[in-house]
Amino acid sequence: MRRPLVLSLPLAFAAALALAPDAVRPAEGPRPAWALAVHGGAGVVARDLPEAKKQAYLGALAAALADGRERLARGDRAVEVVEAILLRLEDEPLFNAGRGAVFTAEGRHELDASIMDGANLACGAVTGVTTVRHPISLARLVMEKSPHVLLAGAGAELFAGEMGVERVPNEWFDTPERREQLDQWRQRQIEKKPAAKEHGTVGAVALDRAGHLAAATSTGGTTGKRWGRVGDSPIVGAGTYADDRTVAVSCTGSGEEFIRHGVARELAALVAHAGKTPQQAADLLIHDTLKPGDGGLIALGRDGAIAFSFSTRGMYRGAVDANGRFEVAIWEAPEAAPEVGGR
Amino acid sequence: MRRPLVLSLPLAFAAALALAPDAVRPAEGPRPAWALAVHGGAGVVARDLPEAKKQAYLGALAAALADGRERLARGDRAVEVVEAILLRLEDEPLFNAGRGAVFTAEGRHELDASIMDGANLACGAVTGVTTVRHPISLARLVMEKSPHVLLAGAGAELFAGEMGVERVPNEWFDTPERREQLDQWRQRQIEKKPAAKEHGTVGAVALDRAGHLAAATSTGGTTGKRWGRVGDSPIVGAGTYADDRTVAVSCTGSGEEFIRHGVARELAALVAHAGKTPQQAADLLIHDTLKPGDGGLIALGRDGAIAFSFSTRGMYRGAVDANGRFEVAIWEAPEAAPEVGGR
Repeated sequence: MRRPLVLSLPLAFAAALALAPDAVRPAEGPRPAWALAVHGGAGVVARDLPEAKKQAYLGALAAALADGRERLARGDRAVEVVEAILLRLEDEPLFNAGRGAVFTAEGRHELDASIMDGANLACGAVTGVTTVRHPISLARLVMEKSPHVLLAGAGAELFAGEMGVERVPNEWFDTPERREQLDQWRQRQIEKKPAAKEHGTVGAVALDRAGHLAAATSTGGTTGKRWGRVGDSPIVGAGTYADDRTVAVSCTGSGEEFIRHGVARELAALVAHAGKTPQQAADLLIHDTLKPGDGGLIALGRDGAIAFSFSTRGMYRGAVDANGRFEVAIWEAPEAAPEVGGR
Repeated sequence: MRRPLVLSLPLAFAAALALAPDAVRPAEGPRPAWALAVHGGAGVVARDLPEAKKQAYLGALAAALADGRERLARGDRAVEVVEAILLRLEDEPLFNAGRGAVFTAEGRHELDASIMDGANLACGAVTGVTTVRHPISLARLVMEKSPHVLLAGAGAELFAGEMGVERVPNEWFDTPERREQLDQWRQRQIEKKPAAKEHGTVGAVALDRAGHLAAATSTGGTTGKRWGRVGDSPIVGAGTYADDRTVAVSCTGSGEEFIRHGVARELAALVAHAGKTPQQAADLLIHDTLKPGDGGLIALGRDGAIAFSFSTRGMYRGAVDANGRFEVAIWEAPEAAPEVGGR
């Protein structure tokens, strides 16, 4: 079972360890007072990603971590922090969530999101929303202002209207890169070639100073999706789960597989009933239960231990905690964290 | 922890045991070659249910069991049998699924269903369909003819069109009883009284001669639902789960609670990782994890052991197996099984 390594910065130390890819992660310090992990999707990220693009991804992840660090350090609730981080990533066109979401077969955007508060298992989710700028905030309103857990499609839009959340025309989510991916997808359909998998789902898991866990996930789904396809991101227990007694989890990848195996809920069960650490449980699910290439996840234990696991070539991700950890990564080895002071 | 008893017929034996409500279930015989359990929803079923109505429910359950017995005895696959049983119950106006589904706040019907094959974890589900006579068959087509697991709303209707399944006008699902429940719901809304909970979801779990498990669930949701509310029935891992290695499960009740706790998936995890029997795991979830009145479930282990558990006043249910078990029940004690030869 291969475990993708995400190593601590500073750079020199990281570079040294990168020469020893099987090196074990340095022992953790004491339980951090708070911790946060984020992901921006798992997928086939080419090693020759242009440097400017790579820096843009790393910069967006680092900015999210810096934002979360400030919020968690001052005592914000985990559920507030994961929403705030996803708001930021939904607005970032690089990721497949909010602006920058992939196109459906019909050339539109249908967005999914979910959020869960480990303190009380409160949760909310939306699927197939088309005019809500921030699906993650609508998911939080489902959690807090409705008796429900999951709202779909036109009904979710009605609820958005009643809640008065910010609306945008569907084209607001368009980006040239995603339009090009749709064109490629259509060409592959004509040529009867299998569709390329693009994963750019965003997610966050947080542990706050009060010891509460939370998780959130937001996505545009898969390029060329149709028939009102729902993936794992808006399914509590599949793409997202948080329970103070065990773990907070956010997944990304082939949604159908994550639903079929109930990955987020099962990760919590492996911690609760099988004595696994979040990292062990994550690796078991990603490398043994799921198939190679299915995707990845981030998990955060009640002790602040952060787990990353993925079976794709890369996963955009980052981690920060109260003990000074601050790291971003795409492939197995860590990357230099860009300056984030200005953001 | 109270365990609802469902006792074996024949009648005389059952009547004797009914006098000793705390009597332990008689020891099981050898592993049955096949087994089937069904439910028609858990809820507040009045003890003074008119005799004719009670017999109608018991007759419908017994007819479903007799149908399943014939199919399983001749070697049909579990996944085929649970679909066939739910087709029948969807057409039966007594239950809140297919014809007889409850009304939404807007006076329409939005139907949900899911199915899962424990042999390969294949699964399919639909939510918010409005013109498909048999949502459970559409769920099976999602499983077998699409790369997806869950389709929602208008998109699911498009898929139904492509598959050529039987369509009906939305009013086809109307029944006077459900219309009356909608009127009552509206009156309670005006009076700001809490809505009555009506649970009439149908579900089936089967073990076939080849040792494969399957589960299926179908529902109209809750009276007065709006905003595209999705409950647990179409969520694999919440309302439905099947895995040959552990158990097949179908749930009914307050869907949000079943999603929040990932009940069906967690039941499988308790069997897999915590050494629980299906009955122990079911009771733990229904009586300890969930709140009183949240609902109930049926579960079937790989050894053919059938588990029922509910925290509502009653649950329409039945069980049949290759060892001659044939029983129907609503409250804790069993009921005389009606004649089913003619159906």
